[in-house]
Amino acid sequence: MKNIKVGIIGGAGYTAGELIRLLINHPNAEIDFVYSTSNAGNKISKVHQDLVGNLDLEFTDTTNPNVDVLFLCLGHGNSVKFLSENTFSENTKIIDLGNDFRLEKDKFFNGNTFVYGLPELQKEAIEAANYVANPGCFATAIQLGLLPLAASGLLKNDVHINAVTGATGAGTSLSATSHFPYRDNNFSYYKPFTHQHLGEINQSVKQLQKSFSSDILFMPNRGNFSRGIFATLYTDFEGTVEEAIAIYKTFYKDAAFTFVSDDVLHLKQVVNTNKCLIHLHKYNNKILITSIIDNLLKGASGQAIQNMNLMFGLEETTGLNLKATYF
Amino acid sequence: MKNIKVGIIGGAGYTAGELIRLLINHPNAEIDFVYSTSNAGNKISKVHQDLVGNLDLEFTDTTNPNVDVLFLCLGHGNSVKFLSENTFSENTKIIDLGNDFRLEKDKFFNGNTFVYGLPELQKEAIEAANYVANPGCFATAIQLGLLPLAASGLLKNDVHINAVTGATGAGTSLSATSHFPYRDNNFSYYKPFTHQHLGEINQSVKQLQKSFSSDILFMPNRGNFSRGIFATLYTDFEGTVEEAIAIYKTFYKDAAFTFVSDDVLHLKQVVNTNKCLIHLHKYNNKILITSIIDNLLKGASGQAIQNMNLMFGLEETTGLNLKATYF
Amino acid sequence: MKNIKVGIIGGAGYTAGELIRLLINHPNAEIDFVYSTSNAGNKISKVHQDLVGNLDLEFTDTTNPNVDVLFLCLGHGNSVKFLSENTFSENTKIIDLGNDFRLEKDKFFNGNTFVYGLPELQKEAIEAANYVANPGCFATAIQLGLLPLAASGLLKNDVHINAVTGATGAGTSLSATSHFPYRDNNFSYYKPFTHQHLGEINQSVKQLQKSFSSDILFMPNRGNFSRGIFATLYTDFEGTVEEAIAIYKTFYKDAAFTFVSDDVLHLKQVVNTNKCLIHLHKYNNKILITSIIDNLLKGASGQAIQNMNLMFGLEETTGLNLKATYF
Amino acid sequence: MKNIKVGIIGGAGYTAGELIRLLINHPNAEIDFVYSTSNAGNKISKVHQDLVGNLDLEFTDTTNPNVDVLFLCLGHGNSVKFLSENTFSENTKIIDLGNDFRLEKDKFFNGNTFVYGLPELQKEAIEAANYVANPGCFATAIQLGLLPLAASGLLKNDVHINAVTGATGAGTSLSATSHFPYRDNNFSYYKPFTHQHLGEINQSVKQLQKSFSSDILFMPNRGNFSRGIFATLYTDFEGTVEEAIAIYKTFYKDAAFTFVSDDVLHLKQVVNTNKCLIHLHKYNNKILITSIIDNLLKGASGQAIQNMNLMFGLEETTGLNLKATYF
Repeated sequence: MKNIKVGIIGGAGYTAGELIRLLINHPNAEIDFVYSTSNAGNKISKVHQDLVGNLDLEFTDTTNPNVDVLFLCLGHGNSVKFLSENTFSENTKIIDLGNDFRLEKDKFFNGNTFVYGLPELQKEAIEAANYVANPGCFATAIQLGLLPLAASGLLKNDVHINAVTGATGAGTSLSATSHFPYRDNNFSYYKPFTHQHLGEINQSVKQLQKSFSSDILFMPNRGNFSRGIFATLYTDFEGTVEEAIAIYKTFYKDAAFTFVSDDVLHLKQVVNTNKCLIHLHKYNNKILITSIIDNLLKGASGQAIQNMNLMFGLEETTGLNLKATYF
Repeated sequence: MKNIKVGIIGGAGYTAGELIRLLINHPNAEIDFVYSTSNAGNKISKVHQDLVGNLDLEFTDTTNPNVDVLFLCLGHGNSVKFLSENTFSENTKIIDLGNDFRLEKDKFFNGNTFVYGLPELQKEAIEAANYVANPGCFATAIQLGLLPLAASGLLKNDVHINAVTGATGAGTSLSATSHFPYRDNNFSYYKPFTHQHLGEINQSVKQLQKSFSSDILFMPNRGNFSRGIFATLYTDFEGTVEEAIAIYKTFYKDAAFTFVSDDVLHLKQVVNTNKCLIHLHKYNNKILITSIIDNLLKGASGQAIQNMNLMFGLEETTGLNLKATYF
Repeated sequence: MKNIKVGIIGGAGYTAGELIRLLINHPNAEIDFVYSTSNAGNKISKVHQDLVGNLDLEFTDTTNPNVDVLFLCLGHGNSVKFLSENTFSENTKIIDLGNDFRLEKDKFFNGNTFVYGLPELQKEAIEAANYVANPGCFATAIQLGLLPLAASGLLKNDVHINAVTGATGAGTSLSATSHFPYRDNNFSYYKPFTHQHLGEINQSVKQLQKSFSSDILFMPNRGNFSRGIFATLYTDFEGTVEEAIAIYKTFYKDAAFTFVSDDVLHLKQVVNTNKCLIHLHKYNNKILITSIIDNLLKGASGQAIQNMNLMFGLEETTGLNLKATYF
Repeated sequence: MKNIKVGIIGGAGYTAGELIRLLINHPNAEIDFVYSTSNAGNKISKVHQDLVGNLDLEFTDTTNPNVDVLFLCLGHGNSVKFLSENTFSENTKIIDLGNDFRLEKDKFFNGNTFVYGLPELQKEAIEAANYVANPGCFATAIQLGLLPLAASGLLKNDVHINAVTGATGAGTSLSATSHFPYRDNNFSYYKPFTHQHLGEINQSVKQLQKSFSSDILFMPNRGNFSRGIFATLYTDFEGTVEEAIAIYKTFYKDAAFTFVSDDVLHLKQVVNTNKCLIHLHKYNNKILITSIIDNLLKGASGQAIQNMNLMFGLEETTGLNLKATYF
């Protein structure tokens, strides 16, 4: 396939930076423009400084309405505003990394429909879509931990979730809880039981298991690391751990990036990859599910490229076989 | 009171180091000997290197059987062995920082009885004791989060606990999960639902609320920081958050180091202090309790000195008004 | 001595926080007021959150002109402004933690004279002073590494200095280089060869060795840790390392907090202490001097309390025998 | 070109892990075997755990003597021993990541000659070589900072170098200085002025500037991060900074991975890349050169693959366009 022309909106943030890093090595795509009003005219490598030597492009404050695909990397709520104020070709596919279009009630825009972009949930719908709402980072890790059980109708009771995210999850904006002397060697939680990703998590669970009516109790934490999400989930499960493993391996047998590990996991196994690793453990009547991702890749920009690949009929893994950092 | 002569057994480890740091500034105690067979003859400040300029003492491999108090800082299981092979005066009080004597079934030794040394649970018993079993670090954080509810008979259902500990919790022995390139910017769990501190936690809960028969589901995690334990606990609670706060403030009204905070907590508030901070939050029918301590101080050596103070009739806070590190 | 009444100006910053932590345990001083216009009326423990349980005081926007001693914790350049706009008793001693009065050319203010407050350089002058200019953090570490040689007239050639500071050195203001995702696992330098502390360093060196006319080449770096300064200095030295050690031990024989270590140093030996540790090593014709301090204590607030002790005729170490954090 | 069959000796260490990560995505190479006596029979993904889902291969304790290229990832001194005890085809090219063959005096082995594998120094010699000695990590960063001046005959005086390395630089073996509670938030130096890489650095400098007879004074430091080397170097330089920049840009105009940056550098710009970034700054009569690399990639395994590419006539960058981690 010839080159896909890509536009990126909101180019100075972390997820845009990751998109650029992925796209400069993608064999079927090329960056047409990176839009950032605050940085227009500056070299991209002045902001994403690891790109010195890789990229001479500058940020722009004008868009090309004829790009093949547009990635929106805007603050939550700003995608609707941007699309209302800017027009693109009807052939331009759109992938929104914000949360504006993820819920069923929000998915219609201007006569078009956004498809929820979790490939493990609905690859065919994504392949057929022109507009995709890319999932949230916590939502990705948690759904990939729960969906196999939901698909088997086995979520019978409350689900207890504890997850820790790195500081990049809070974005590039300076904040007290991302100030190094505060965050270094520290730990804290926020939005206990009320994180905004619960909406999309519940939506997907019920899409697979209509009968689900229990609570998903989710404690999100701030870790003192930069990248990654480490999530543990447990709930009642009557079968053996082998039965659970079989259910998960079957559910993910065609998944490009989600794998079941026989061994206990640690976060750095997935840092700087597009993978999700899952581990299962049984204790009394509980199944303990560990699910880990890189919040900026499988939790954001990597999954966005995965969706782009699917929408353009490319091999799902194109440009996403990344060298892990690991340590 | 004249000076208390102190002996420390197992002097090269983290908890012994913390005891020495506390004792050199304690107005009523003096270090008589620090026993370490592997380091005998070496200056203590060669091992605990922050003590350069503070202390000229050397490690020894002989003990003084007439010290006033003996701290045992040995690996779990080794206190029984040490006391079987070494004799001390019947006037020597003993504080064991290991887990050998914490459970009711283990508390008798050689005609003596070890009292479980959690001052917030039973200060009078400690004051009267000659032998004290100092609580575990996770056990301290978790009990201080649960005991007020147990004392009110209000633990009605399963308790869900997630706690993260720093790398000092694993001790001075080199290990793969404490190797810097592994631990840095990483996160992992261990012993899910089966941590050895559950024994003493359940014992204390049932001491206050005999009827308690639900599960305490405890997920212990390894954080990529050096010091501290951050624990969140939730369970069903019918009252308001104000009622919960009142219960906790009443329970801790005479506590020397445990305080209820109106604000959400972060771990570094207690690092390098002997404090436990508690915060309460209500969500639907759940009470969320946060409990944070320094694992080496309130979770080990600080609490050991607090117990020593009580056992010798000193003001409980003597030598424990520490400057927090905070950042 | 009866209690010294203390006022703190600029109470929300790191150095003010450290002063408060030190003063609440100081046996001869009590905090009279903590001035912060932006936080007036708020509890101090809402800002310095480790103080929950220790302190009920609130920030104020009015000053008490009759305090015994006033600490100025303002941004550089703001002390002159503050003292011009606010009047204090002629009996009020003043310790400025900024850089407004450190240089000979700046030391006169309103008919009074600020004495440079490095006790190892001029303890008697400080004891007699009513106004003290507290040294800078890098300046303290570097001077303590150089002064013994200067006092012996042995600085014969260029001095090459590399020093790394923790993120607290940049203060509480949010900044791009203190944003956690940037700073974590990172390293960088700033102001190569032109750091503002060179002024006071050169001044003190020439005070002891008038003939000194070589260059002090100083590279300041940002480390990915929170507290501390690790400085290495080397220059030509003709004697043996034993001769160097003798010079340093003699120079610091009465120093309360500065010690020569026989062993190679690492930064955490001094974290959360008021100490400076020095180590000497000879290679060919070079002497390599390592000098380490906690930037917020010996490099700021600890030294300020040390100066206060001297100015009020107290034992120099009063309130400064701190428990190191070490790990 | 058809697939290059690769054997890796010493497969459980960090550099072998990085080679495997690079080779699984390399379009012209395939891993034939990974030799590790201690892990023989275990899945590689049990040791290099980020490879779960990528690789099913097991470690072996037998070698295939007919591989096209052999990478030696052994402890320093062990390559000679291994090659003495094991025989490979005369067509097998060998790349040694240890320091056994880097110096002129060590380069002959068994009738063959090892070429020093720094592409920026001697690309043609590497292209023609069958045996390559891969440079050390500090040596790579420092040489890339010095070689342009040496090539212009402009190193006139002592060179002062300060460099900091991450903990992976010390390898997978557990050690006291890589124990997390020690290393976290710490800083220290080792082998002041005597680091073993000075041999290869001086050798290359003199290869380009025979007249060089000054000292290279090198202070190596341990940083509390996992990956990367940040090196600053300064020496006398009479020209302007623009002249220096011109010299460096000319020297590196054909370099695949080494770039001169107009902006001040920070370490994370190169983490998880094969790049070296250089920045130049002039102060009085000194030129300050910053040189940064990822110690495991450009400082080890990435450069080894770069050498392999050159030795097999491939595009130098093949398989090395890596996504940076950056944060």
